[in-house]
Amino acid sequence: MDLAPFLTARRQVLRQELERRGLAGAIITDPNHFFYLTGLLPNLNFPSLLALDAERAVAVVPQYGVNTSALPAASDPLEVMAYPNLTLADLSRFVDEYTERERAFAAAIHELGLAGRPVGVDAHYFPVWLAQAAGFAPEHLHDVGEFLYHQRIIKDAWEQEQLAFAVRLNDIGFAAAQAALRPGVSDYEVFSAAWRAMAAHLGGTFDLHGEFSGGPAITGQGGCAPVGYTFQAGDLLIADIYPVIRGYQADTTRTFVVGAPAPWQREWHAVLEDALARGEAAIRPGLPAAELDHIVRGYVKRHMPAGGSMFHHAGHGIGIAVGKGAHYPPFIVPHSPDILQEGMVLTLEPGLYVPGKGGMRLEDNYIVTANGCRPLGTFPKTLVECG
Amino acid sequence: MDLAPFLTARRQVLRQELERRGLAGAIITDPNHFFYLTGLLPNLNFPSLLALDAERAVAVVPQYGVNTSALPAASDPLEVMAYPNLTLADLSRFVDEYTERERAFAAAIHELGLAGRPVGVDAHYFPVWLAQAAGFAPEHLHDVGEFLYHQRIIKDAWEQEQLAFAVRLNDIGFAAAQAALRPGVSDYEVFSAAWRAMAAHLGGTFDLHGEFSGGPAITGQGGCAPVGYTFQAGDLLIADIYPVIRGYQADTTRTFVVGAPAPWQREWHAVLEDALARGEAAIRPGLPAAELDHIVRGYVKRHMPAGGSMFHHAGHGIGIAVGKGAHYPPFIVPHSPDILQEGMVLTLEPGLYVPGKGGMRLEDNYIVTANGCRPLGTFPKTLVECG
Repeated sequence: MDLAPFLTARRQVLRQELERRGLAGAIITDPNHFFYLTGLLPNLNFPSLLALDAERAVAVVPQYGVNTSALPAASDPLEVMAYPNLTLADLSRFVDEYTERERAFAAAIHELGLAGRPVGVDAHYFPVWLAQAAGFAPEHLHDVGEFLYHQRIIKDAWEQEQLAFAVRLNDIGFAAAQAALRPGVSDYEVFSAAWRAMAAHLGGTFDLHGEFSGGPAITGQGGCAPVGYTFQAGDLLIADIYPVIRGYQADTTRTFVVGAPAPWQREWHAVLEDALARGEAAIRPGLPAAELDHIVRGYVKRHMPAGGSMFHHAGHGIGIAVGKGAHYPPFIVPHSPDILQEGMVLTLEPGLYVPGKGGMRLEDNYIVTANGCRPLGTFPKTLVECG
Repeated sequence: MDLAPFLTARRQVLRQELERRGLAGAIITDPNHFFYLTGLLPNLNFPSLLALDAERAVAVVPQYGVNTSALPAASDPLEVMAYPNLTLADLSRFVDEYTERERAFAAAIHELGLAGRPVGVDAHYFPVWLAQAAGFAPEHLHDVGEFLYHQRIIKDAWEQEQLAFAVRLNDIGFAAAQAALRPGVSDYEVFSAAWRAMAAHLGGTFDLHGEFSGGPAITGQGGCAPVGYTFQAGDLLIADIYPVIRGYQADTTRTFVVGAPAPWQREWHAVLEDALARGEAAIRPGLPAAELDHIVRGYVKRHMPAGGSMFHHAGHGIGIAVGKGAHYPPFIVPHSPDILQEGMVLTLEPGLYVPGKGGMRLEDNYIVTANGCRPLGTFPKTLVECG
């Protein structure tokens, strides 16, 4: 799939909004928006910027740290200006990255004649020094960050494929974790086995982020990365992983059991499987997210064991996560104001926790289609038996 | 070591600067500055803010994602306000993190009576929406980001210990890499072996970042993470690792050889060992960074094999790296304007590369002391023989 027409279309949507609001152009500094509009994966150590008007789009990036070679040739070309940011590249003079960047950012804004005119900015990110350096008064700066955020909730076909790929990579991680998990191994070993398999498939390194809580450490409170726990027969492991792959963050979970599952473990997991299946069957454009929450959470609640709870959201939208992580609408919670729309990509994650006994979660990702949904996960949605 | 008196002292330095400039207080949003002044490790997914005046300091953090429990009781107490940021914590209503954050940021600024008065901000980070939301005109906002950046170049004793710990963790990674590296293993395996040993020592997960280029992939151009290379006898591996540990980024390198080194490999590495030793012996307050560069680079150049080069910086300062990575002054390059000062912590990294044949780098970290330096690395600085 060719990214170029999607980039053109995304910039066109922004340009129409700028025209509608009488703005001369836009200056984008939020790494998520920048990536969405340029296709260039920014380097958070060295800020990038996009300046855009009705005809031109100029990306300012560090010379070192952003790969511009893979940039597709869109029908509205993206011009790239690189500012020197490391002395690695040129030892013949002293490079001060701060000065170089200020100069390059101001140059791009002046190049498009935007200085001192009403422009759209991502106001939650656009720094005051840049406003001052480029001669913008407060009344010149109009927020288009919220507009872009809402634009990005609906994923185009290219984004959907990126998220599908990220989910497949998670599935490869689950298979590797299943092969590695047995009595006597540590959560670090299982985690790094998943990482190795995913890196080999991806063809490069990445940061594996996620909850990876096993045995008595399972609280279901989330955010519990490996802590050095050594697995024993009968232990459960919740692997809820959400690495950022090529700028996109999928978010899927399987629960693993070391050895043959106990009857209660099978029964609990069957509740999650049924809850997820009911949620999946219900997904369609127009469905209120609160209703989807009720379908998933209500089923878990009706069938959970004594003392059980599902205290967390039943899901959320996913998407770009460059710098800032990605919990997007629709938020699948009881009082959610969101309505499902075609092109949203979301996670559903029924969970079930009994303090002192254990916890389980089952999570997969779905594209909302015209008539229902396309499930992205392919790894079996059963309790994963290991070792 | 107790962090509390250092936090008090850091905030005192900022307060003196605010008083000197007649500013009513400061509002800090840059995650690096925030961490330095509060001791709270920010969560980049959910922005934090510090509002400070002559008497009080108020940190605004997300309810979920920032650990405030370990906060030391400083003699000038830090007040913490948490804004709801996830529906995980409360399903009884819909939580919109953006609205909650805006409200909490504005509340902290009003709590200290800073709105509409001249304040210090980190202008490269402070977003225009916050200026508008809190009623600041451009003339109210004065940059103190550069002041804080320069303050942070000199590390206090607590910071020096954090960096020393990060270097020790790298050394544990080097030992694990040495044990794992043999013919037939992939760079992914060696990388994850280093990660596992470091995580076990740290007692938790972290992102292992670094160059890890082996065999013919060695270009010395940097940034080359594992790519799936399978090692053969005689291969070299440059492991240049710079994970961020508890907010601090050390940066050290060893070169490994698979099997017994060839005579040329020993000779090349001896050049780097001697260059590093000369640099180490020269470090002292008052030394121009350009002179230190000349000592290290000059030695390599005089002794390098035909066709060899050392094209990159000979080192740089290190420090906090929350969100944005850490290349700090002093920059050890030929035209550097920097002068070494007591309390700086820096890396020296002589390297030697011959296109088509191979490359090597040797790097360790040093605290500039009153009379010289304290080397932080303990892993042997010889060519590391493996397998």
